[in-house]
Amino acid sequence: MAGLAPRPRYVSVVGGTDAGEPVVALAEEVGRMLAQRGCVVVTGGRAGVAEAASRGAVLAGGTTVGILPGATRAEANPYVTVAVPTGVGEARNAMVVMDAAAVIALPGAYGTLSEVAFALLAGTPVIVLGNGWDLAGTVPASTAADAVDLALDLARPEG
Amino acid sequence: MAGLAPRPRYVSVVGGTDAGEPVVALAEEVGRMLAQRGCVVVTGGRAGVAEAASRGAVLAGGTTVGILPGATRAEANPYVTVAVPTGVGEARNAMVVMDAAAVIALPGAYGTLSEVAFALLAGTPVIVLGNGWDLAGTVPASTAADAVDLALDLARPEG
Amino acid sequence: MAGLAPRPRYVSVVGGTDAGEPVVALAEEVGRMLAQRGCVVVTGGRAGVAEAASRGAVLAGGTTVGILPGATRAEANPYVTVAVPTGVGEARNAMVVMDAAAVIALPGAYGTLSEVAFALLAGTPVIVLGNGWDLAGTVPASTAADAVDLALDLARPEG
Amino acid sequence: MAGLAPRPRYVSVVGGTDAGEPVVALAEEVGRMLAQRGCVVVTGGRAGVAEAASRGAVLAGGTTVGILPGATRAEANPYVTVAVPTGVGEARNAMVVMDAAAVIALPGAYGTLSEVAFALLAGTPVIVLGNGWDLAGTVPASTAADAVDLALDLARPEG
Repeated sequence: MAGLAPRPRYVSVVGGTDAGEPVVALAEEVGRMLAQRGCVVVTGGRAGVAEAASRGAVLAGGTTVGILPGATRAEANPYVTVAVPTGVGEARNAMVVMDAAAVIALPGAYGTLSEVAFALLAGTPVIVLGNGWDLAGTVPASTAADAVDLALDLARPEG
Repeated sequence: MAGLAPRPRYVSVVGGTDAGEPVVALAEEVGRMLAQRGCVVVTGGRAGVAEAASRGAVLAGGTTVGILPGATRAEANPYVTVAVPTGVGEARNAMVVMDAAAVIALPGAYGTLSEVAFALLAGTPVIVLGNGWDLAGTVPASTAADAVDLALDLARPEG
Repeated sequence: MAGLAPRPRYVSVVGGTDAGEPVVALAEEVGRMLAQRGCVVVTGGRAGVAEAASRGAVLAGGTTVGILPGATRAEANPYVTVAVPTGVGEARNAMVVMDAAAVIALPGAYGTLSEVAFALLAGTPVIVLGNGWDLAGTVPASTAADAVDLALDLARPEG
Repeated sequence: MAGLAPRPRYVSVVGGTDAGEPVVALAEEVGRMLAQRGCVVVTGGRAGVAEAASRGAVLAGGTTVGILPGATRAEANPYVTVAVPTGVGEARNAMVVMDAAAVIALPGAYGTLSEVAFALLAGTPVIVLGNGWDLAGTVPASTAADAVDLALDLARPEG
């Protein structure tokens, strides 16, 4: 069918909104590598890890989706290709990881924890990078490249 | 900033999932024209008007977003570029039109009516095409071209 | 089973938040009569019709549920027996009428219209009282007593 | 104002849906004690810990609220006084603990973890009872009485 590519893999990248420099650099590298592997990068669409991962992906020519808590696209960071306002507040955390092929979790706070919990609840592989949450069911990674490899190796066929 | 285009306008197209041929043709034309005008087309992501508008937009080189009621991307029609599973059922109707620059409403049933209501509630211009809901606050259009012109003329600056 | 009453019927009462005196009086009468008939009265929990219906029900000894758009119970009116903060904004309109045995709609604006649309979408009987929305599928009533009678006559067995 | 009691404190009790006997007994005791202290008990409304806590509360004369994931009240356990269908699936976990004065968490799986995460995100005191999640920010309790005492001591003034 002309004009229709096969559905890409969606990988969610989660982590704190006020991430420090090392975490930001890791997130940007993760975003870049996911884009290079043809994945759509889904984030919560705002600052910190979401912005860095989106920047990495977009500057590598990828597509990024930001699932926003508020009712306006204005809160998206500038590297979000497709901004999705939800208006449902923190309940949107469930949607940030929904039906992801895999989730890569960088350090964050309780919002990130809720996203990891929703992913685990759905049986989605969760790769933890950089001293994030150490929870039963998650898979630790030591580098961005390692995290992306693990995510795509463990990725669910649908998603 | 290299790689970053200005944020596009998002226009939502709503209508029934079991639309007949004339409505499908209208929806496809609306989608095509919106894409030609540089808009991202947002729909509910499934059959009928959503599929036709998405097909028109994608085949014209545009980007389409499908805001899905279920928890999986598998329910998106094949012309959805970016599929967004929400898992919130019919409450996602609020998100289909959220922060749209304008909404174009084709004939549909009560689900479509709820989307029109949410758009009007938010002060978003609603263009009604093809014998749809005749409600105070909506703007009637007689052709697809007319609907797209009205949508972009009345479009909210943000969205 | 000691202590367990049969599940009551839940009837939702919807309408504007800035209702004028005649509408407020009607809503209070509706709430009172529903409570006298043993129904739990569900509303959006804030001012106007919701407050009046809740006041009528509570002062008659009934139970009222307020499904709130925000994330705090503080926004509930004082006649809400059980306040339910949802944090999902206007998307909570879907929940105000969800699985209602019937819905009684007094005059309101687009938020009320979305609630009526969701109820009709679910196949729930919608009784319109006092010059509200004249939509296919709704049932007009001329007095509060008439509305309550119609609601309970048409009520879905489950709900 | 006749007929209006002061707003009660709402305490959420979370935990697994397939809890074993010792956990069920603990949950029931927690529910009973919360009711005896005048609290409304909020749960996810279904089996396991939610059912046991609701049973304990109702049999002690208390009020219980079940925030359900589905779109129908039929899925509530019989000890739910006020059943609230949300239709938003697991995203309703955010609502189960929303604006709670405190949360008491019994053992559960990832759904419970998401509820704990949302509570911590909101700054709500989370009391963990019975080998549940050991997370920074939670407060451990050793008995049901201890958990209820801690919950009410630490309870937020609003909620």
